[in-house]
Amino acid sequence: MLTHGGDLVGFYETYGRMPLDFSVNVNPLGLPKGARKAAEAALSHAAEYPDPAYRQLREAVGRHYRIPPAFVVPGNGADDLIWRIAAVMKNRRVLLTAPCFSEYENALETFGCRIERHVLKAEHQFCLTEDILEKITPDLDAFFLCNPNNPTGRTLDRGLLLRILDRCREYGTLLWVDECFNGFLDRPEEHSLIDRLSSYENLAILQAPTKFYAMAGLRLGFVFCAGDRLRKQLWTFGQSWPVSVTAQAAGIAALEDRTYAERSRALIRKERERVRNMLKAASITVIGGEANYLFFHTDIPTFDRKLAEKGFLIRSCASYHGLEDGYYRIALRTPRDNDKLIKAIRKIAAASA
Amino acid sequence: MLTHGGDLVGFYETYGRMPLDFSVNVNPLGLPKGARKAAEAALSHAAEYPDPAYRQLREAVGRHYRIPPAFVVPGNGADDLIWRIAAVMKNRRVLLTAPCFSEYENALETFGCRIERHVLKAEHQFCLTEDILEKITPDLDAFFLCNPNNPTGRTLDRGLLLRILDRCREYGTLLWVDECFNGFLDRPEEHSLIDRLSSYENLAILQAPTKFYAMAGLRLGFVFCAGDRLRKQLWTFGQSWPVSVTAQAAGIAALEDRTYAERSRALIRKERERVRNMLKAASITVIGGEANYLFFHTDIPTFDRKLAEKGFLIRSCASYHGLEDGYYRIALRTPRDNDKLIKAIRKIAAASA
Repeated sequence: MLTHGGDLVGFYETYGRMPLDFSVNVNPLGLPKGARKAAEAALSHAAEYPDPAYRQLREAVGRHYRIPPAFVVPGNGADDLIWRIAAVMKNRRVLLTAPCFSEYENALETFGCRIERHVLKAEHQFCLTEDILEKITPDLDAFFLCNPNNPTGRTLDRGLLLRILDRCREYGTLLWVDECFNGFLDRPEEHSLIDRLSSYENLAILQAPTKFYAMAGLRLGFVFCAGDRLRKQLWTFGQSWPVSVTAQAAGIAALEDRTYAERSRALIRKERERVRNMLKAASITVIGGEANYLFFHTDIPTFDRKLAEKGFLIRSCASYHGLEDGYYRIALRTPRDNDKLIKAIRKIAAASA
Repeated sequence: MLTHGGDLVGFYETYGRMPLDFSVNVNPLGLPKGARKAAEAALSHAAEYPDPAYRQLREAVGRHYRIPPAFVVPGNGADDLIWRIAAVMKNRRVLLTAPCFSEYENALETFGCRIERHVLKAEHQFCLTEDILEKITPDLDAFFLCNPNNPTGRTLDRGLLLRILDRCREYGTLLWVDECFNGFLDRPEEHSLIDRLSSYENLAILQAPTKFYAMAGLRLGFVFCAGDRLRKQLWTFGQSWPVSVTAQAAGIAALEDRTYAERSRALIRKERERVRNMLKAASITVIGGEANYLFFHTDIPTFDRKLAEKGFLIRSCASYHGLEDGYYRIALRTPRDNDKLIKAIRKIAAASA
């Protein structure tokens, strides 16, 4: 149960203080003010069960993403929906990239799926290449992709993505695309497959305000899908009231805040370049990171532990399939926090030189 | 997805107004004030992931119920934990009473369990009797019980309950006891099996502040179990962060509010008798109801629809296995609300006489 970033309590127990947390990729602007107000107001309805059909929520989500509300299946964070799809896929053959967000293999293996891994190569900077198409065969039940990928922060070439989508449809293979970090890209709409939903019933898109609207503690996520059958299964394979009234209210308010979205992208764009350059100056070359996190390799031994001793929590990627020791992921935070991290990294790099 | 009570939005769409809702059994005192304050304060941590080990929450729960924190598995409402245990039990043989809370069969059937039903009889006022012991056989994997039962509001005889527990242990059968309504009983501790946890690793108890602390909209529940293996499975078979920071904070604060608990039991005890007597005066005999809801039968046709037209939502029990048309469940609310309902029932009874 402790395989992800963000274990602040665990950090505290080991190091005697709370860290500056670069291990989770949450928007440094924090929960939008309107979302906090809405969540507070929703506490007046804490005694009531949420609407089991989540009608108001699905309408707001549909408006924001310009899709029919019927396409939306809500969940208690993206994570809940990953476990639902795993329960739906049980015992079937699923293709994953390696590396890829680790919750997919946790959930799919728990439900007896046979997992095949397509290893992304360091020489291609962990980008997906044409050879993936050969892996999509008639007996493949599903292909799970993250775009941008986690932990690499790499997006897929759109032409290749569309060929993957076509090939999956041809073979009746579900294409599950996790777009949870799409909002942090410089041009989100160029990378999303939302515009293809209506034409591809074999396509399901995972989206969550968790990261982009800094709601990790409230738990809210969605699957978008035009296929009635899959949607019904996702509704059915899990509890009846996954989303709390607070998460629901905060989510609706957050999606309406266009200024917040623009401010976030501007901040991330600037910090992404700045931190990348500062890391380079400390002899660390960033491999990937088109969203709100950077992915890099360093030969400095126990790099994350050295940073932890200085009060910084970063994500070691050694536990990911397809990656070994020395790969790390850091979130982009505020300029001030980022400067602190870089300062600590410089000291460690200098001491190791 | 719409098989439970509390579908307020659906009611609104049909009847053009919000109902006075007697279909969900939530404490009429509402969320304790301290819990609301704590949830509000927790919104400052909305951007952070909850502690994945839920250490603070488990300690508070352990203190309240006088069990080791390690025994506690938290979930996103009791419902989340019902789905987790169903995933754990998949394809196995499970005994349920009929009637019984319907989410059990939804979840267990979804995961391919072979369900056996022990039908509770009207002539025994839907109480469990000694003949249940014969149904606990060596090849039975689990027996799921609600105590008090839902929708009947009936508790089990403690002697019988302990014999069931012993027999289950003898055969390696899991005994899952849903005690979600235990707090509303006049003498909760006389009916709980919490004191047996340490001696019975085959015992799991489901508990949730959802009803007793009026937190249905926040989503929080627990399983208590001394068996390491089952606990590990419950942690594993589902998402990593089931409980939001708001639910966690509200839950901790609620459990500390002893006054609220006493006030609630006093109110419910009084209203239970009062409403029972008023129903009797309207020629409706209550069959069961030792907790915060009453269970009765009436021959008046479409009784719930007649009440809905007057703005009251009650729970028809016709969809439960083992019950037919004419069985209903009503929650106990405030004296004022209960009076309104009884007035409407009297009118309907008079018109049907």
